[in-house]
Amino acid sequence: MMIRLIYASRAINLGPVDVKDILSSSRRNNHQLAVTGALSLSNGIFLQCLEGERSAVNAVYHHILKDKRHNKPEILSLEEITQRQFTGWNMGLIAATAENSALFLKYSSTSEFDPFTMSAPALKEFFAEVLSSARWLS
Amino acid sequence: MMIRLIYASRAINLGPVDVKDILSSSRRNNHQLAVTGALSLSNGIFLQCLEGERSAVNAVYHHILKDKRHNKPEILSLEEITQRQFTGWNMGLIAATAENSALFLKYSSTSEFDPFTMSAPALKEFFAEVLSSARWLS
Amino acid sequence: MMIRLIYASRAINLGPVDVKDILSSSRRNNHQLAVTGALSLSNGIFLQCLEGERSAVNAVYHHILKDKRHNKPEILSLEEITQRQFTGWNMGLIAATAENSALFLKYSSTSEFDPFTMSAPALKEFFAEVLSSARWLS
Amino acid sequence: MMIRLIYASRAINLGPVDVKDILSSSRRNNHQLAVTGALSLSNGIFLQCLEGERSAVNAVYHHILKDKRHNKPEILSLEEITQRQFTGWNMGLIAATAENSALFLKYSSTSEFDPFTMSAPALKEFFAEVLSSARWLS
Amino acid sequence: MMIRLIYASRAINLGPVDVKDILSSSRRNNHQLAVTGALSLSNGIFLQCLEGERSAVNAVYHHILKDKRHNKPEILSLEEITQRQFTGWNMGLIAATAENSALFLKYSSTSEFDPFTMSAPALKEFFAEVLSSARWLS
Amino acid sequence: MMIRLIYASRAINLGPVDVKDILSSSRRNNHQLAVTGALSLSNGIFLQCLEGERSAVNAVYHHILKDKRHNKPEILSLEEITQRQFTGWNMGLIAATAENSALFLKYSSTSEFDPFTMSAPALKEFFAEVLSSARWLS
Amino acid sequence: MMIRLIYASRAINLGPVDVKDILSSSRRNNHQLAVTGALSLSNGIFLQCLEGERSAVNAVYHHILKDKRHNKPEILSLEEITQRQFTGWNMGLIAATAENSALFLKYSSTSEFDPFTMSAPALKEFFAEVLSSARWLS
Amino acid sequence: MMIRLIYASRAINLGPVDVKDILSSSRRNNHQLAVTGALSLSNGIFLQCLEGERSAVNAVYHHILKDKRHNKPEILSLEEITQRQFTGWNMGLIAATAENSALFLKYSSTSEFDPFTMSAPALKEFFAEVLSSARWLS
Amino acid sequence: MMIRLIYASRAINLGPVDVKDILSSSRRNNHQLAVTGALSLSNGIFLQCLEGERSAVNAVYHHILKDKRHNKPEILSLEEITQRQFTGWNMGLIAATAENSALFLKYSSTSEFDPFTMSAPALKEFFAEVLSSARWLS
Amino acid sequence: MMIRLIYASRAINLGPVDVKDILSSSRRNNHQLAVTGALSLSNGIFLQCLEGERSAVNAVYHHILKDKRHNKPEILSLEEITQRQFTGWNMGLIAATAENSALFLKYSSTSEFDPFTMSAPALKEFFAEVLSSARWLS
Ligand SMILES: Cc1cc2nc3c(=O)[nH]c(=O)nc-3n(C[C@H](O)[C@H](O)[C@H](O)COP(=O)(O)O)c2cc1C
Ligand SMILES: Cc1cc2nc3c(=O)[nH]c(=O)nc-3n(C[C@H](O)[C@H](O)[C@H](O)COP(=O)(O)O)c2cc1C
Ligand SMILES: Cc1cc2nc3c(=O)[nH]c(=O)nc-3n(C[C@H](O)[C@H](O)[C@H](O)COP(=O)(O)O)c2cc1C
Ligand SMILES: Cc1cc2nc3c(=O)[nH]c(=O)nc-3n(C[C@H](O)[C@H](O)[C@H](O)COP(=O)(O)O)c2cc1C
Ligand SMILES: Cc1cc2nc3c(=O)[nH]c(=O)nc-3n(C[C@H](O)[C@H](O)[C@H](O)COP(=O)(O)O)c2cc1C
Ligand SMILES: Cc1cc2nc3c(=O)[nH]c(=O)nc-3n(C[C@H](O)[C@H](O)[C@H](O)COP(=O)(O)O)c2cc1C
Ligand SMILES: Cc1cc2nc3c(=O)[nH]c(=O)nc-3n(C[C@H](O)[C@H](O)[C@H](O)COP(=O)(O)O)c2cc1C
Ligand SMILES: Cc1cc2nc3c(=O)[nH]c(=O)nc-3n(C[C@H](O)[C@H](O)[C@H](O)COP(=O)(O)O)c2cc1C
Ligand SMILES: Cc1cc2nc3c(=O)[nH]c(=O)nc-3n(C[C@H](O)[C@H](O)[C@H](O)COP(=O)(O)O)c2cc1C
Ligand SMILES: Cc1cc2nc3c(=O)[nH]c(=O)nc-3n(C[C@H](O)[C@H](O)[C@H](O)COP(=O)(O)O)c2cc1C
Repeated sequence: MMIRLIYASRAINLGPVDVKDILSSSRRNNHQLAVTGALSLSNGIFLQCLEGERSAVNAVYHHILKDKRHNKPEILSLEEITQRQFTGWNMGLIAATAENSALFLKYSSTSEFDPFTMSAPALKEFFAEVLSSARWLS
Repeated sequence: MMIRLIYASRAINLGPVDVKDILSSSRRNNHQLAVTGALSLSNGIFLQCLEGERSAVNAVYHHILKDKRHNKPEILSLEEITQRQFTGWNMGLIAATAENSALFLKYSSTSEFDPFTMSAPALKEFFAEVLSSARWLS
Repeated sequence: MMIRLIYASRAINLGPVDVKDILSSSRRNNHQLAVTGALSLSNGIFLQCLEGERSAVNAVYHHILKDKRHNKPEILSLEEITQRQFTGWNMGLIAATAENSALFLKYSSTSEFDPFTMSAPALKEFFAEVLSSARWLS
Repeated sequence: MMIRLIYASRAINLGPVDVKDILSSSRRNNHQLAVTGALSLSNGIFLQCLEGERSAVNAVYHHILKDKRHNKPEILSLEEITQRQFTGWNMGLIAATAENSALFLKYSSTSEFDPFTMSAPALKEFFAEVLSSARWLS
Repeated sequence: MMIRLIYASRAINLGPVDVKDILSSSRRNNHQLAVTGALSLSNGIFLQCLEGERSAVNAVYHHILKDKRHNKPEILSLEEITQRQFTGWNMGLIAATAENSALFLKYSSTSEFDPFTMSAPALKEFFAEVLSSARWLS
Repeated sequence: MMIRLIYASRAINLGPVDVKDILSSSRRNNHQLAVTGALSLSNGIFLQCLEGERSAVNAVYHHILKDKRHNKPEILSLEEITQRQFTGWNMGLIAATAENSALFLKYSSTSEFDPFTMSAPALKEFFAEVLSSARWLS
Repeated sequence: MMIRLIYASRAINLGPVDVKDILSSSRRNNHQLAVTGALSLSNGIFLQCLEGERSAVNAVYHHILKDKRHNKPEILSLEEITQRQFTGWNMGLIAATAENSALFLKYSSTSEFDPFTMSAPALKEFFAEVLSSARWLS
Repeated sequence: MMIRLIYASRAINLGPVDVKDILSSSRRNNHQLAVTGALSLSNGIFLQCLEGERSAVNAVYHHILKDKRHNKPEILSLEEITQRQFTGWNMGLIAATAENSALFLKYSSTSEFDPFTMSAPALKEFFAEVLSSARWLS
Repeated sequence: MMIRLIYASRAINLGPVDVKDILSSSRRNNHQLAVTGALSLSNGIFLQCLEGERSAVNAVYHHILKDKRHNKPEILSLEEITQRQFTGWNMGLIAATAENSALFLKYSSTSEFDPFTMSAPALKEFFAEVLSSARWLS
Repeated sequence: MMIRLIYASRAINLGPVDVKDILSSSRRNNHQLAVTGALSLSNGIFLQCLEGERSAVNAVYHHILKDKRHNKPEILSLEEITQRQFTGWNMGLIAATAENSALFLKYSSTSEFDPFTMSAPALKEFFAEVLSSARWLS
């Protein structure tokens, strides 16, 4: 059983290299567990999508929960899937650039992007559009 | 929860710079509240579409109600949405030009455009077609 | 409430300029009432599609009934619509030319086009295909 | 092809025995043509439902149009059907009694029953409920 | 076109006879406009459902907005309907009794009933269940 | 936004009064947060369903994660809902009695009940049948 | 592959014992081929429903075609089925009694029952209602 | 009512010019009756599709049944349609060439094309693909 | 992942106690693997339905294949399920009595019950009806 | 009745020419039985799709079961189809190259491709994408 889990959390105590560091841990660890996904950090909020075997995604998620660099986690959506969306990335980073901000606004009811207010269907459409048209950092 | 609210009202006592003035207030205020939308003035009738967080759209709508430049407001349609249509405009103005009149006629049962006679599904299709093919004033 | 009404009738006592005359009256009158539509005369049978506000279409139809140039009227289809098909014509004339005869045959169970035998869904598909590919007289 | 046609018209010059007379003509004539249906007279408005072979229903309707006891006819709904609703009546009369008025209000947006404002789906639901729970005059 | 409009607002400065007074005005005025509906006052929040002709419901709603006994109105749902739910009441009052509180909790994500957090589908199901099983005050 | 979250975990170091203790804490705490749900302990596996506001359910779930009396948690299903199923219980306990074992087998592919192998749709049907026909401990 | 085939034909030269004779042959032969069905003779028209293996139903139908007691056969409907309707009869006879005539009228657009005018969906509903409520001859 | 009837039969005693002869008779006769269609002869089996007015298709089919050049007819599919597929041919001939054999195999469970084993949905898809991509003989 | 697998095979060399023996082995073994199901022997054909974890059902099926008391096995249907149908039986036996023969005929195109001719949907409906109304041997 | 059967098994004792040998036997034998399909060998697991007449696919499958070069077979999916997917191959071989590994990952919850964990819908989508974009060995 594969699932896609989307959660948001608030970044705290983020030092300059932390995002880079999170990405490199993620890629190393997620590869082991065959977990793929995408991460965005915008407006001080992490929004992450994790996809893979249900037990593996759960393991990764429960592991991330312990990280001191974020708090107030909230699972926003979880669904069973038959195929992955993010085959290219064990963890892709969606840039918080000006180019992506129209896309953020389109799905956000607030002027600052706030995924905590988004419903599961909205998040699904958001990640689908992200996949096809957002700018990614590599 | 994001919604799209569409209402019509009758223009009264409109001076020459009023529409320009409404647009600039709208853009300034709606930007604050992350409200987007479109406005048309045709046949002496305002037709406006407002989209954003449900409470913000309600705040804007109830504020507009007090404006002395229109009366007889009627909410024609209100629905929950997962994404905005008018991401480009905090308030776009649909020109009441000859070019747009065929489009108006297509959805209107009257020869003069009269949104008060239109149903919610017709308005939905109208704004979708407006978005893709109408002439806009900037 | 906009509707689309389709009826057929049998042409009688048609003089040489009658169709031309019907078209020009139709365009003048239907324009007033914001009624649009299409007319075909083939195999001695009128087939007409009228779209607009329900009361206006009814008024036009009940007015046409009194015309001595046809008889045996039969309403074949009537449905509520949200947009018009024939925005270009207050009354368009579908040519009964050889070019259109394959299209007529496709929807007709008889070799001579006979709309009296057609069901509402068949008529709907017929007019949709007429709109996109038939030859029109202007 | 069987259809169900629903129209409304305004009663004029109605003498005391006219409704009774209309009913007895209807039953005699409709029986010949295998047309069944229901009639209501409420708030000075006739609302009639006619069902049978498409050509027969058209013949009856076009015949009734000539009757001087009503005017301003408007066809409100017409659909193809596979079975009749009013098998019991060549023409049943729905009583305009107090008992039926709650039923009328349920489907009417006005306090006086006004079928001219009703959409085709509303009329369909109205006649279905009439059939199962209204009081009939015999 | 009939609609059903549901809004919530916060009660302010409510004196002892105000609810009784609101109900009697509502019944008198709504009857005139053929508007039906239901009202609840629970947890200091009014939740009202209004159904009738679109222009009449709008007129009543815009009239109520001016009432000083509530503020912060928010339209929560608006949909076109073919039949009314509350035919029995020009304005029914849903009791805020212990008996109804389980029903309130079932649809509310908060322990104190807070319709401002409810989505349109949840409100629709809530009023349907209210209709069939809530206690009413008369 | 209300959600229903279902997870399983493995019981460890369970002393004789632990389940009773978990239930009483749950009832006290969940009541505060307006969270409702059901819990089963069978075959050494906890299966819990939590429903309420999305942020409240997340808070409860993330709080429970820290409990030393279980480990290997896995979220099995999470969906947005418009109404609660378990309005009667802030936390109901499904008895692991012989009477319930046929019900467990019906939804389980293993002879010992193992929710870790169940899909989201199967869990949904399981809890619906539990609600209507399982034996509960009070 | 099981099918249900419905055809009509016109009775000719029917002697007094012919229907009885047809029924007894049918029962004997159809039993061999595992064909089940129903037959009606009304208004001089045979209407027969045959169900069974596609090749068997075809064999029976092509055999019946040669019978001199009817002519002008027309297949009205043929569909693949997963279960039979007429398990009780290798050939049941629907009585053309007064009791059944309301049922006939309900599905017939003519006053005399004429299956030649009926569509496949209407025939399907007719036989379903026949099965549950018509009078049968044995 | 237009239908599409598909049947198969086994060719017997076919002389060299018979197919050519069948085609020319078909075109002449079917044109009269406004019947259109397609014929294939492959693996000694005729597969024919006939479309037109229900009574006309029945007349053609019952006429063909008498032809000594085939036997063991079996109707495989019959459905009501709103438009014809084979407007170009009163009877088109699908070539049994090598080019068409992959298409035959795609829909056939046997290596030699055997329509007697095909279900109605498979035949429908087969003729749709034949229409767009098979080679035809003229 | 639970599945339901249905296959048929031909009984050979069946001695008097074989069915009894098969049943007792089945119950013993299937219980171990949490496989449930039903078996019928009619007209010399075994028809068996097996439900449980996909790997367990496969194991049982591949084990049964080796049994010398039947041959020519054919899997007729296999589908993923969320709940079992035959919770009461690790293997129930459907009696081949006169009472069940009408039920057999209803789903069978042949007079002797032959599941090899049945489609997956027909088998699904057959077992559902078997469950609710067939006679079982214990 | 055509079906598509998908199963997986574990390769054992595979010598260097075995896959080549399996392919040539498959092509020779499957051609006889009009069976088409595709085979992949990746991560020591065979995944094969077989399509054709239900009895032929069963015969091939039960024949393959006896092959000593694999064991632990598990049928993963079986469905009735109206057309084949793999018309080009009596048995195509999907290369286990680097190019195909992203495609494998997309549908697999594990980093090494493991079809035993895949559901029937996932397998269906996998083979559809394989057909259009995988690299094949010939
Ligand atoms: C918002 C956020 C998202 C993270 N996502 C992942 C992830 O997807 N995979 C992962 O292994 N670690 C992730 N981490 C980092 C882990 O919490 C942890 O630091 C990391 O796995 C430690 O890995 P290491 O011990 O292998 O270096 C994330 C951390 C944060 C704050
Ligand atoms: C038809 C109509 C539409 C309007 N739409 C908006 C709007 O979308 N947003 C807005 O802020 N003001 C809108 N206004 C103007 C407001 O009524 C009000 O004049 C304005 O918000 C005053 O803003 P200011 O005090 O910031 O200048 C509208 C007025 C009219 C007559
Ligand atoms: C088949 C047929 C279709 C017609 N369609 C229309 C029509 O769509 N609109 C219209 O105004 N008149 C139509 N007419 C003509 C009217 O019957 C009538 O002659 C005309 O409206 C008189 O108009 P006038 O008095 O303005 O010249 C039609 C007549 C026939 C025979
Ligand atoms: C509202 C209304 C409905 C009528 N309905 C019918 C009807 O369904 N059938 C009918 O034959 N006559 C109907 N009539 C009466 C006809 O207009 C006409 O008077 C009648 O058919 C004359 O019939 P007779 O000449 O057979 O007496 C209706 C009249 C009115 C005003
Ligand atoms: C929450 C609330 C709901 C109300 N609902 C209605 C209503 O449905 N209809 C109505 O006429 N008045 C309603 N009223 C009262 C009106 O605001 C106003 O007081 C009343 O219509 C005055 O009527 P009167 O001048 O006829 O007495 C409501 C007031 C409140 C605070
Ligand atoms: C399987 C399991 C389920 C639990 N469910 C809940 C729950 O729904 N709500 C809750 O407050 N505590 C729950 N608990 C208990 C908490 O982990 C924790 O012990 C409790 O909230 C402490 O509460 P207290 O400090 O108020 O006594 C659960 C514990 C376990 C092991
Ligand atoms: C309208 C009609 C329906 C018939 N239906 C059947 C039938 O379902 N099965 C059948 O065997 N014969 C049927 N027959 C009779 C056959 O045409 C033929 O007379 C009969 O099969 C001869 O059977 P026998 O030679 O076994 O007596 C029907 C005849 C008619 C006129
Ligand atoms: C398989 C097959 C298909 C046929 N299809 C048709 C057809 O579609 N239309 C037709 O008129 N004749 C068709 N025929 C030929 C008729 O059976 C008959 O020979 C022909 O209609 C005689 O026509 P003629 O007397 O006009 O020459 C077909 C014959 C066979 C064997
Ligand atoms: C038609 C048929 C169905 C059978 N079904 C089952 C079954 O569901 N489970 C099972 O264990 N054995 C089944 N058997 C029996 C097995 O083939 C085998 O004889 C049995 O499992 C041996 O079990 P034992 O060694 O435990 O006695 C079936 C045999 C036949 C012929
Ligand atoms: C994984 C696997 C798949 C196979 N697929 C087929 C197949 O589709 N068709 C086939 O005839 N043989 C297949 N075989 C080979 C058969 O088991 C057997 O070796 C072969 O049919 C012998 O054929 P021959 O006696 O004609 O050489 C397969 C074998 C394996 C291990």
